[in-house]
Amino acid sequence: MTTVRGLARARLGGRVVLVRIEGEKATVLATESGHPAADVLREALHTGVWHADHAGGETVPVGDLELLAPVANPSKILCVGLNYLDHAEESGVEAPARPLLFAKFPNALVAGGADVEVPEDLSGRLDYEGELGVVIGRRARNVALDEALDHVLGYVAANDLSARDAQFSDGQWLRGKSADGFCPVGPVVTLAEDVEDPQALRIVTRLNDQVVQDGSTEKMVFSVAEIISYASRYLTLEPGDLILTGTPPGVGFARKPPLVVGDGDVVTVTVEGVGEVANRVRVI
Amino acid sequence: MTTVRGLARARLGGRVVLVRIEGEKATVLATESGHPAADVLREALHTGVWHADHAGGETVPVGDLELLAPVANPSKILCVGLNYLDHAEESGVEAPARPLLFAKFPNALVAGGADVEVPEDLSGRLDYEGELGVVIGRRARNVALDEALDHVLGYVAANDLSARDAQFSDGQWLRGKSADGFCPVGPVVTLAEDVEDPQALRIVTRLNDQVVQDGSTEKMVFSVAEIISYASRYLTLEPGDLILTGTPPGVGFARKPPLVVGDGDVVTVTVEGVGEVANRVRVI
Repeated sequence: MTTVRGLARARLGGRVVLVRIEGEKATVLATESGHPAADVLREALHTGVWHADHAGGETVPVGDLELLAPVANPSKILCVGLNYLDHAEESGVEAPARPLLFAKFPNALVAGGADVEVPEDLSGRLDYEGELGVVIGRRARNVALDEALDHVLGYVAANDLSARDAQFSDGQWLRGKSADGFCPVGPVVTLAEDVEDPQALRIVTRLNDQVVQDGSTEKMVFSVAEIISYASRYLTLEPGDLILTGTPPGVGFARKPPLVVGDGDVVTVTVEGVGEVANRVRVI
Repeated sequence: MTTVRGLARARLGGRVVLVRIEGEKATVLATESGHPAADVLREALHTGVWHADHAGGETVPVGDLELLAPVANPSKILCVGLNYLDHAEESGVEAPARPLLFAKFPNALVAGGADVEVPEDLSGRLDYEGELGVVIGRRARNVALDEALDHVLGYVAANDLSARDAQFSDGQWLRGKSADGFCPVGPVVTLAEDVEDPQALRIVTRLNDQVVQDGSTEKMVFSVAEIISYASRYLTLEPGDLILTGTPPGVGFARKPPLVVGDGDVVTVTVEGVGEVANRVRVI
């Protein structure tokens, strides 16, 4: 893997901090507030201390940090459904004519490495969806397509965990996709300036040791820029908001025979050049 | 109308404050922070200063206040679809076997009295939905039915504005229901102790001067307690979260002929003993 470089939220001693990571070194940029919606990345976007111009404070070895989800209390987690043509096909539906927007809430966020505790009645057809996540850096309202990427802070690896039983029986996807822990992300936000082309990123998902998805963001129906421009016509995007941009083919429910994520299984999502998030599932 | 009594967020001079309103008097309880997710009600739930035991600061006439949406940055706005049998019937679907959960985000929140600016492509079949809103006071995770109401801070009047074109063509309801300004609420959170029975509240919706919905929360398929208990099995509810509990019959799209909320129209939702929220729609 190339040198890790980006922003991360982490526990350091008794506090939660935002750090800038370069290889094995982490520079502390800010300490998370005690606000009920505390989120040091969102707070740093507000004050500006995330920026490379900001020298930061102490430098510590990355090994001293417990890395957390890089966003904790975004105003929204906006997700895009069926955004890869071949995933729409395997799902037995046509690709949507417009980005298909749905929601997760912050309760779903969890760091890589943490267990995801899944209620038994959501475990029957639990599924993975490896995705490129986008973190918004600047408020976006009604932004033009050619300015949309200016609103991106950076990118994360994300897993849009999906309980297919609840998702499909409800019809509305919220319960099956926004249960506690159903949005593993991170750990590092790779800054936009370090991602040459967000539409040329390989996404690989592993269920334990088996590669189950191996796609590329070049196959998106709607690009990151198109998603941001479109969504911002309806829902103002705030700094720190997270967008999940859809999953490539290979999800468990569409396989023959189907694959189900079971108790003890580990799902690993790797977005090349961006990051990797791995979580064990526990059925409770 | 009976004496207004409850908690409200309001602008007072150059700051945003939480006040306790009793009739014509308002006691200032707290000043909103400068946090990017600032929400003085959520902050006061964190510190405890919302409580009646807290004497508060200065007292001002209610007339000096500009009342705002009582919640500004909840971690989630959880909505329940098709929660009145006769509304499910008029919508041409069966009442759901479980509470049907869907989402709005904080960008949708707007105070009573404010204009709601609706993008033209959401205006074709814009519709009202008068609802009882519930504000969570205490974290709820996996709570039993008989303890669910202990987690309620209070109640608000709410309008689940819905762009039927987007709602139905997307299939997922987010875009049609969570556009900016699509969740008028407030202005006062009537505390749970002042609401004798949340399942015996009349809800009246007016489109300009015409009564278009006149229902009662006694007709809910799933009670407030059932919704909280059920939802908390999947999504942890946080203090300050808002739940919209579904709408009684009479919505515009199900009428013959249909009613559409048009440019300049005013929608007023009155929840008896709780509050009233009125907003003019502007198509932009």
